Amino acid sequence: MTDTSSPQDTRTLYLEDIAVGDRFVSGEHALDAEQIKSFASQFDPQPFHLDEAAGQDSLFGGLAASGWHTAAITMKLFVAAMPIAKGLIGAGVELTWPKPTRAEDVLHVESTVTEITPSRSRPGRAMVTVETLTLNQHGEPRQRLVSRMVMFARGAD
Amino acid sequence: MTDTSSPQDTRTLYLEDIAVGDRFVSGEHALDAEQIKSFASQFDPQPFHLDEAAGQDSLFGGLAASGWHTAAITMKLFVAAMPIAKGLIGAGVELTWPKPTRAEDVLHVESTVTEITPSRSRPGRAMVTVETLTLNQHGEPRQRLVSRMVMFARGAD
Repeated sequence: MTDTSSPQDTRTLYLEDIAVGDRFVSGEHALDAEQIKSFASQFDPQPFHLDEAAGQDSLFGGLAASGWHTAAITMKLFVAAMPIAKGLIGAGVELTWPKPTRAEDVLHVESTVTEITPSRSRPGRAMVTVETLTLNQHGEPRQRLVSRMVMFARGAD
Repeated sequence: MTDTSSPQDTRTLYLEDIAVGDRFVSGEHALDAEQIKSFASQFDPQPFHLDEAAGQDSLFGGLAASGWHTAAITMKLFVAAMPIAKGLIGAGVELTWPKPTRAEDVLHVESTVTEITPSRSRPGRAMVTVETLTLNQHGEPRQRLVSRMVMFARGAD
């Protein structure tokens, strides 16, 4: 088990470099109201993502980032923290947002390898499950992401 | 069962307006290489999302949109097609990307209500499960999204 706390890991990770329990901690992304509104106006133009007063009147009780914005920032932090050989290509994911992401949040992600399933048909290839928590500066979780991704051994096709 | 094919539905949907099997079909979003690279440079800066030649050399066999970009475009189309009262607030989602999204894709989404589970503790409130397929102009699926969302009856808190 390795605790890898470098926000920008410059290695390239192959299958033999990881084990269940390995943890990758990213750098930080400071959010603000302008980013929240800009993303929302392009992709999730609902009042509580666009306007403070509308946010106050909503279930969120204040301006909240789109969950898809939190997911996109998570990916940015994750690709820098866990540089997988041939790239991070997700087969499928599950996402939950336990609490809304706010304009004052400074986000980072903590990813843990939870399962490694070698391919039966293709040697040197495995499906790797990673749980990624997106946390703010107070350690409060904003998103939980479980991803399944293909990883390759050195020299595999 | 209602087939609602208006790309911009101007109604506001309450719990009593929907039933299992109801379907919502969105308008279209035409993608291009510039949008793919712009999103990727902000949120998923991997070579196969940023450069055609790098895409050719990758598992994708060509420039491919980030799955998170496909997800974000899906949300834009979905919020216009299924205007839920008090907003579309996802409790949790599952996502798979059966094939990469390409620069020449013109995307639309087709959402089907698959389950309605009334809240036991809060009358007039239910957890609604919706399956949303994101398809290109040839009907080829690019993403499957299953979302669980809160919906409210008229007059509920």
